[in-house]
Amino acid sequence: MNTTVETILNHRSIRKFKSEKLTKDQIHTIVKAAQQASTSSHVMAYTIIGITDENLKAELSAVSGQPYVKDNGHLFVFCGDLNRIYQQASIEEQSQMQESMESTEQFIVTTIDAALAAQNASVAAESMGLGICFLGSLRNDITRVSNLLKLPEHVIPLFGLAVGYPDQDPEIKPRLPLEVVYQENEYATDKQHALIRDFDNQLTSYYQNRSSNTRTDTWTEQMIRKYSHPIRMDVTPFMKDKKFNKR
Amino acid sequence: MNTTVETILNHRSIRKFKSEKLTKDQIHTIVKAAQQASTSSHVMAYTIIGITDENLKAELSAVSGQPYVKDNGHLFVFCGDLNRIYQQASIEEQSQMQESMESTEQFIVTTIDAALAAQNASVAAESMGLGICFLGSLRNDITRVSNLLKLPEHVIPLFGLAVGYPDQDPEIKPRLPLEVVYQENEYATDKQHALIRDFDNQLTSYYQNRSSNTRTDTWTEQMIRKYSHPIRMDVTPFMKDKKFNKR
Repeated sequence: MNTTVETILNHRSIRKFKSEKLTKDQIHTIVKAAQQASTSSHVMAYTIIGITDENLKAELSAVSGQPYVKDNGHLFVFCGDLNRIYQQASIEEQSQMQESMESTEQFIVTTIDAALAAQNASVAAESMGLGICFLGSLRNDITRVSNLLKLPEHVIPLFGLAVGYPDQDPEIKPRLPLEVVYQENEYATDKQHALIRDFDNQLTSYYQNRSSNTRTDTWTEQMIRKYSHPIRMDVTPFMKDKKFNKR
Repeated sequence: MNTTVETILNHRSIRKFKSEKLTKDQIHTIVKAAQQASTSSHVMAYTIIGITDENLKAELSAVSGQPYVKDNGHLFVFCGDLNRIYQQASIEEQSQMQESMESTEQFIVTTIDAALAAQNASVAAESMGLGICFLGSLRNDITRVSNLLKLPEHVIPLFGLAVGYPDQDPEIKPRLPLEVVYQENEYATDKQHALIRDFDNQLTSYYQNRSSNTRTDTWTEQMIRKYSHPIRMDVTPFMKDKKFNKR
């Protein structure tokens, strides 16, 4: 196994960082790694906002409810961005571009572009001895995050990425069996229930034995609980207000 | 610079592969790398379908209009998947889960989860000496792809990933200047036009000097052309049919 695959397979989210800040060089390497990810038709439909202002970090941390949004080596916010392209066009061209830009298809393009970039950033950071945590929690109040970062139309905050020197050493969290996630030639559901039952047992044992925050739970129970309580339903109108996912 | 960062920064999409197929071991390593990516609240909301059936590959290649969808070392299709969780629930629980599952928020979660996994797969493959190409082109006829792979409700094909031994050696394609993509504390638009004009010049020179498929073009012109012609507008109703992005 090569060192890159090793880095990838050793991933676990870090939720407690040392106070040491990333250097400008480290930040630039991470951003350059993000930028080199594949991008749909070269649109590069994202902007990455680094947060250095401590008050702003505190505000974002309040939205997320997570202290590591504030306490880390560096905080990135990944935004979907079609505004950059829109601003390059004349008013006449802009009106021609509206239908495409507001489509579900381009919402997908933008979201995937930003996510590919962010995963490259994560792998690069981890290869440099840093830890990372994705922060979907910034969508707890997406309008507030958007206002804090002064995002115009055609720009949407998708998630944060906290990076820094790990101040904890958590276990690697188990994943679903490969046979559940990877199939050949068609979507098959036989054997899934049995394999997921085994995974539930494995996860119960992981939760009971891990070094902190032990509990009794299964994946199935967690997921059913989670999806029984709709969250972030304001994301839908927010996207439309920002001219995404409208038609 | 460590070898992982080097691998990431050397990425270019490969569109011509040798005929040698990936081994089962290689495929499993790539899938395991995909699975170890971060996932929102542990939902692992994706299924990866490997295509080994040559007829099926030919059909998918016809949808994409790209020969390398057929001619590669292995073809993966990344699907967003909430069906797995849905099937674990009782009928009563399922009806409780509907509002959440059909939200824009969970559409974002699913799309990001699949994209993070796919980027890990890509970096792992490249670190193993393989080349990759993302295939958003499978969304040219998303209903047909869905039918070919027998995807049920709550499962959506998002993109393909062609992997194999490179049979070409293309140049690395330039990215927007870091200062355009990376900003601090707030979204800023000053200086963007000038920086993008420089990038347009750089890209014109890249297109004129690259080893194959030379042309005269700028990023700005390409983007305005692209967004002036809506494509894949059927993706919107398709998602709703599959119970995604409905409310």
